[in-house]
Amino acid sequence: MGYTEQDWKAINTIRLLAVDATFNSNSGHPGAPMGMAPVAHVLFNKFMKFNPKNPNWLNRDRFVLSNGHGCMLQYALLHLFGYGVSIDDLKKFRTVDSITPGHPEAHDTPGIEVTTGPLGQGISNAVGLAIAQAHTAAVYNKDGFSLSDNYTYTFLGDGCLMEGVSGEASSLAGHLQLGNLIAIYDDNHISIDGDTNVAFTEDVVKRYESFGWEVLIVDDGDNDLDSIEKAIAKAQQSKDKPTLIKLRTTIGFGSLQQGTHGVHGSPLKADDIKQLKEKFGFSPEQSFAVPQEVYDLYNKHAAEGAAAEEEWNKLFAKYGEKYPNEAKDLSRRLKGDLPEGWEKSLPVYTPADPAIASRKLSETVLQKIHQIVPELVGGSADLTGSNLTRWKEAVDFQAPATGLGDYAGRYIRYGVREHGMGAIMNGLAAYGTIIPYGGTFLNFVSYAAGSVRLSALSQIRAIWVATHDSIGLGEDGPTHQPIETLAHFRALPNNMVWRPADGNETSAAYYVSLTSKHTPSIIALSRQNLPQLEGSVIEKGIKGGYVLHEDPNADITLVSTGSEVCICVDAVKYLKEKHNIAARVVSMPCTEVFDSQSKEYKLSVLPDGKPIMSVEVMSTLGWERYSHEQFGINRFGASGPYKDVYKKFEFTPEGIAKRAVATVEFWKDVPNVRSPLNRAFQQII
Amino acid sequence: MGYTEQDWKAINTIRLLAVDATFNSNSGHPGAPMGMAPVAHVLFNKFMKFNPKNPNWLNRDRFVLSNGHGCMLQYALLHLFGYGVSIDDLKKFRTVDSITPGHPEAHDTPGIEVTTGPLGQGISNAVGLAIAQAHTAAVYNKDGFSLSDNYTYTFLGDGCLMEGVSGEASSLAGHLQLGNLIAIYDDNHISIDGDTNVAFTEDVVKRYESFGWEVLIVDDGDNDLDSIEKAIAKAQQSKDKPTLIKLRTTIGFGSLQQGTHGVHGSPLKADDIKQLKEKFGFSPEQSFAVPQEVYDLYNKHAAEGAAAEEEWNKLFAKYGEKYPNEAKDLSRRLKGDLPEGWEKSLPVYTPADPAIASRKLSETVLQKIHQIVPELVGGSADLTGSNLTRWKEAVDFQAPATGLGDYAGRYIRYGVREHGMGAIMNGLAAYGTIIPYGGTFLNFVSYAAGSVRLSALSQIRAIWVATHDSIGLGEDGPTHQPIETLAHFRALPNNMVWRPADGNETSAAYYVSLTSKHTPSIIALSRQNLPQLEGSVIEKGIKGGYVLHEDPNADITLVSTGSEVCICVDAVKYLKEKHNIAARVVSMPCTEVFDSQSKEYKLSVLPDGKPIMSVEVMSTLGWERYSHEQFGINRFGASGPYKDVYKKFEFTPEGIAKRAVATVEFWKDVPNVRSPLNRAFQQII
Repeated sequence: MGYTEQDWKAINTIRLLAVDATFNSNSGHPGAPMGMAPVAHVLFNKFMKFNPKNPNWLNRDRFVLSNGHGCMLQYALLHLFGYGVSIDDLKKFRTVDSITPGHPEAHDTPGIEVTTGPLGQGISNAVGLAIAQAHTAAVYNKDGFSLSDNYTYTFLGDGCLMEGVSGEASSLAGHLQLGNLIAIYDDNHISIDGDTNVAFTEDVVKRYESFGWEVLIVDDGDNDLDSIEKAIAKAQQSKDKPTLIKLRTTIGFGSLQQGTHGVHGSPLKADDIKQLKEKFGFSPEQSFAVPQEVYDLYNKHAAEGAAAEEEWNKLFAKYGEKYPNEAKDLSRRLKGDLPEGWEKSLPVYTPADPAIASRKLSETVLQKIHQIVPELVGGSADLTGSNLTRWKEAVDFQAPATGLGDYAGRYIRYGVREHGMGAIMNGLAAYGTIIPYGGTFLNFVSYAAGSVRLSALSQIRAIWVATHDSIGLGEDGPTHQPIETLAHFRALPNNMVWRPADGNETSAAYYVSLTSKHTPSIIALSRQNLPQLEGSVIEKGIKGGYVLHEDPNADITLVSTGSEVCICVDAVKYLKEKHNIAARVVSMPCTEVFDSQSKEYKLSVLPDGKPIMSVEVMSTLGWERYSHEQFGINRFGASGPYKDVYKKFEFTPEGIAKRAVATVEFWKDVPNVRSPLNRAFQQII
Repeated sequence: MGYTEQDWKAINTIRLLAVDATFNSNSGHPGAPMGMAPVAHVLFNKFMKFNPKNPNWLNRDRFVLSNGHGCMLQYALLHLFGYGVSIDDLKKFRTVDSITPGHPEAHDTPGIEVTTGPLGQGISNAVGLAIAQAHTAAVYNKDGFSLSDNYTYTFLGDGCLMEGVSGEASSLAGHLQLGNLIAIYDDNHISIDGDTNVAFTEDVVKRYESFGWEVLIVDDGDNDLDSIEKAIAKAQQSKDKPTLIKLRTTIGFGSLQQGTHGVHGSPLKADDIKQLKEKFGFSPEQSFAVPQEVYDLYNKHAAEGAAAEEEWNKLFAKYGEKYPNEAKDLSRRLKGDLPEGWEKSLPVYTPADPAIASRKLSETVLQKIHQIVPELVGGSADLTGSNLTRWKEAVDFQAPATGLGDYAGRYIRYGVREHGMGAIMNGLAAYGTIIPYGGTFLNFVSYAAGSVRLSALSQIRAIWVATHDSIGLGEDGPTHQPIETLAHFRALPNNMVWRPADGNETSAAYYVSLTSKHTPSIIALSRQNLPQLEGSVIEKGIKGGYVLHEDPNADITLVSTGSEVCICVDAVKYLKEKHNIAARVVSMPCTEVFDSQSKEYKLSVLPDGKPIMSVEVMSTLGWERYSHEQFGINRFGASGPYKDVYKKFEFTPEGIAKRAVATVEFWKDVPNVRSPLNRAFQQII
């Protein structure tokens, strides 16, 4: 309330920074920033609590630009408030190695919470941030110590609403009664194909009400700052429902092309910019102009944020006196470190232990470590009993009013929403106090490919517990049996694919997944039982690949993963007995981690001299990197008891031996076979 | 109306077939078939029009079991109606090489329209089937000749509704006013995690109303056959809205565990089956029992269906007299054949033609062939102006009442719904009269991975026009630049990934994509301009890989795809001039098609003797199959003008030459370098 010319000056400054930056770079999206500058101004100045000098302050309000293509809006705000984004950075918008890339990237730009742009992700990340806040508050807040009480705000557009992932996450947000989540929908009626009425005529208000959200409407988001403020204030009062504010705006407000898709994804023309600057009372001669009064206004709010953090720091200091353990624990979590000695809780096995499915071994890990790693917050996309993702004593993360759990609960019932789960995990991790894991069948991690990619790009520690990892799931058949999945996620940069062969390797997979602060993991786990292998120890497993069975006189090396390693071990005996061929076995639970070892070590595992054959019941694509010959399945699987399916595809000691014999034969005339690890030049990584 | 004991006998027969088959196979989901047997009985006997002796009759009603895990329901129905599914087939449920796999697979089992199981897909396929029906009717129906007027029915469960893909497709179905679509929601309150109230408390009725659907409720789906019948009849009357019938059922009806998730995914216990059979008046001693009266009842309806087809055949014969061209065209389409000589319309280029982005070359193909290939029905996920997927004269597929197009229109405005688009394309293709294509950025085909996988598994001809195919998209940056995407889809069995280098290869890509009746394609297309290459011709391109530039004295072969081929051509000159190294260039627009060529041909392209280096601005994963050394990008891209980005990653003639020199040097001591195409044994494909 009481908005003045100064506010409009600020709003128009934001608009023109977006216009100038996109014009200067001859690329980008001016329309959304111009339309959303008013609500951004009101939200950031009247409501949001943050300290630009410390973008990592725990209790800051979170902001997510789900319509990430409008990132010049956010870059302009970051600049005006004094984050580490200069006018020069704005001039480098969308140029190589700038901190102002074409879509917001969390790991590069101070003040960006999550990486957005792929539509529907941001709003779903925001659900994760809101869950994380509710959980953090439930765990750490005490009487008189409201350490965490921030809101999560997100802007989103029509595109975000059309994407299914946002529906998944929003439905869950309603179910979880996340009153701390406020989403502002830029209802500008325009998408790339033109008027949204060509494809998007659903009743968004009604849909979000059906999800259990409070929905508010602001009719004039271009001019009516008072109504915007009232709506946000009202949204803050909604304590058991997330709020969607439907804000009618004009895309490209002020441009000669306003209200059309012409202003969505291309810079404005020079004459348009001229008239715009004149209309807004700016000099048409100047670019990237920021009136001092705008800096002053924004600096004032930034100073308030700094003061708020200062207060919070004092509060936290007092909290530390009264609750030293909790304070220490929270500080530790915020650094991303695990509790000292936690790894001693990882289960260790010997060959005398019984054969156990690796999904069950994973359950044992979670059971053993959940107490000492309290930041682990997990769940499953409605496959709890199959993924075995829930430790016995787990409490569900649920709204307390439901009687089904509470916000201190660490087990999330995601429903059949893999993509939403992936995006929510990214938000959970981004909050700073949680390490998220989520379960589904390996095959359905693909449903969440969009989110997994962003985990990797944003360097987020999220862990997929991906069970039923092959044709070994048996009867459910080809619709559920992954073939391409491991190749897909192995090709994804900064992502670890683990496929442990037994209990010790399962512990190793969790060890590396949990201690890799900046890399997501997919842990592929079997439905069927696997024996505890001779030669497998955690210390070797964490290298990603190691010699499980050595033989200095070997004619061939078999390199394998997961459930096929034990078959390779049997094949070694078979080869010796039937063919007098000696074979080594290399277990390779994680190629990405193996890749990061020294060349000397790697060559000790996959040396020159003799041929190497890979064995994995999946697409062979990519195994050529580690082997000369590949035994895999480059077709879809089959429905039947898993032993029959393995037999059909000859994944038996005999089937492996047959191909090993062919491999030895084929390579015998090549003197000193070169290891595929020897390369002419380094890859770009 | 007028249901008798006989109907209940039939219903219980279905239930017990599901119970016996899952018990017999010790695997599967009895709960949903037991709960949905009543509605299935009513729907199939009172409403559905089909001829079990000809599962391909055009005007049959379509049925999709979106909750595909309940497939024993469908297998039982197929058996009872006399499709090619015997009791013996039911006994082989979920065993290797049976036609009754764990989830319904369209290509194996007569009467299965689409492959389902991965949740959310079936309902979305059904939207495609309904679009296809509306389109076929609009194109072919004439006064007095209602050749196509079938309905599409689908059953779905809570899981399907939770998946975002179903929301995408359902929102579009409402927008498109598809009155021919009737979905029956098995509202049984149970999913794998137990009561749906742990994760799924949204108001489904309200959500579907928000999508523009008619929603009807049947309170007692276990017993009230009359209300079920009334609801379906009413749904049929909804001409401009799809209908969702929310049917309250009891999962595992009749079992001692009815209404719990204990009956969802595991066979019933023997004593439970015993009491169930007694309760239903069946002998507990017998399994797979079908009373003759049930066969009689179902045979009667099957005979009505056969008669209906007979009538239709007569009608179609008359139609053929009056509209010979249309009849011929329709018959041709149903065989999956293209019009004779259509390929003459494919554009051909010479090196004298200007450099053009391959997305633009793709647009030219569509422009040139759309008239002669009338079954092409395309669209874009709200990127029409970027994907260039719309020919100039295109009419939108829209409800006529909107004034935005009509149902004869061949251009679908999918909205920002990639996953829904993929699933809808599968339904469009399954109808039998349409070849669907859909546009989005290559990076966002990943959002639809679940559907692409099912295109491949179901052997469906769907074409992705996947533009902005690399870091070459430039400024949008890493969030939009594919790195892992090609490896992902190359690892997917029965899927073609095309990445044409110029105009002739783009024509080749379309040629093979359109003539491959049983394989989907992803055509990866550049945003940036590409020159027309010397040596590129359609006839070579369709082999998937060929020698673009030969040199009998070559020291090295460069194998490359898409936008990097022209840089390789420049690198050849650079290598010659600066290093006196002779190089050949192989263009490999589609590795999958290349793989299918004769070994002799393949070795002529990638021969023994000299090293081969691959060049592609993506993950190198998989290129080891065709080359000794790989130049690619195993990290995320960068935001900036595309030439700067290419330069950053050294994808320049110099950068390629540098690595080619290293390759030649590294391999020079190896006598007669073996082509990677030589392998010790055949892959399982």
